[in-house]
Amino acid sequence: MKKLLLASTSTVYGGTYLSYLQDELINFFEGINQIIFIPYARPSGISHDEYTAIAHKAFKKIGKEIIGLHTFANPAETLRNAQAIFTGGGNTFLLVTQLYQQQLIAPLREAVLNGCPYMGSSAGTNIAGVTMQTTNDMPIIYPPSFNTLGLVPFNINPHYIDPDPHSKHQGETRETRIKEFLNFNNIPVVGLREGSWIRVEGESISLKGELTARIFTPNTAPYESHEIKF
Amino acid sequence: MKKLLLASTSTVYGGTYLSYLQDELINFFEGINQIIFIPYARPSGISHDEYTAIAHKAFKKIGKEIIGLHTFANPAETLRNAQAIFTGGGNTFLLVTQLYQQQLIAPLREAVLNGCPYMGSSAGTNIAGVTMQTTNDMPIIYPPSFNTLGLVPFNINPHYIDPDPHSKHQGETRETRIKEFLNFNNIPVVGLREGSWIRVEGESISLKGELTARIFTPNTAPYESHEIKF
Repeated sequence: MKKLLLASTSTVYGGTYLSYLQDELINFFEGINQIIFIPYARPSGISHDEYTAIAHKAFKKIGKEIIGLHTFANPAETLRNAQAIFTGGGNTFLLVTQLYQQQLIAPLREAVLNGCPYMGSSAGTNIAGVTMQTTNDMPIIYPPSFNTLGLVPFNINPHYIDPDPHSKHQGETRETRIKEFLNFNNIPVVGLREGSWIRVEGESISLKGELTARIFTPNTAPYESHEIKF
Repeated sequence: MKKLLLASTSTVYGGTYLSYLQDELINFFEGINQIIFIPYARPSGISHDEYTAIAHKAFKKIGKEIIGLHTFANPAETLRNAQAIFTGGGNTFLLVTQLYQQQLIAPLREAVLNGCPYMGSSAGTNIAGVTMQTTNDMPIIYPPSFNTLGLVPFNINPHYIDPDPHSKHQGETRETRIKEFLNFNNIPVVGLREGSWIRVEGESISLKGELTARIFTPNTAPYESHEIKF
């Protein structure tokens, strides 16, 4: 049975890495000892080792071992045999490029569809959608494709943020950007605010955390919802 | 002689479309009657006709005729014969995809290198750089390449915005995103704030407006400058 935990962000304001999710992680990874960490999104350009060390420290608090996927000679095989997988945030273009270059899209998808628990945060959540096209990231590298894992039948915009009514900035709001996406793509989008996460168990999809999500579909006005249902 | 006017934004807070640039436009387009407008970036998904009408209205005030490139049967030929060219803002991924699909990258570049005055705002400014990889836009469509016109030997980040020290948002700042770009690309980046524009006359490059630009190069810390010089 498909089992996903998709977080908007790894850290909320005032917290430390994954601290706001600790209870949820204990629940989600129950019975799991070792989690394979995919560090390819490299936030702020940190190395795979540095990034894995950050995740390692957070998961040590709940008694889980984290091992970086980059340390294995055969990462596809590693994903196939993983007890659980966690993809960290950073730059989605870089993450997706790495997954394609190492031919890991299909093995990762198959592992999760075969029941391997998958957690993502930010970029790691973005790639669970149909495409990476609702990322907020800068296109620092050219990926072979924008298609991603399609573990859920919609796209996710992590770090969703409401327009600031006092802003003098003229750049597009997040809502405007997502509406532009919908002009060209028939894929619903979940605007997932920081502090929110999605749990998927088989066909059941739940929004968690205290906030609503902003839902964008091709033919209706955006709306707020405590549910994710299309 | 190469002649460019590259604006961060078409509109500043409290103004109307291009109003803050009116004196500069009169100067830049002196002796020009007709400007070919490239509407392909379609801000908020408006049509090519709607977008051209907005530009038409703004330029009518200074006695210039605007004609949309989309109305010509042979747009490459139109660019080759243009008196002047203006590319409006919107979504850079869409703009670049359209230019490639219609095989207009080379004709546009050649026209400008042959002396046709080129104005860009926002996405239209972004494509004057070496690549479009410092755009802020959402990847709503997959372009054949991220390489753009290379009319200047650097990349531009339009709508550059400083980190908000009071923000609780955990998404990356603009500065962090540009630094991530520099980890993978040896191309300097000009962070061009709203209200700023760049004028290029042959080999001379000037920053205009009252604000400094934020300059990012691969091997130095970002810095503020009234000049653009690498």
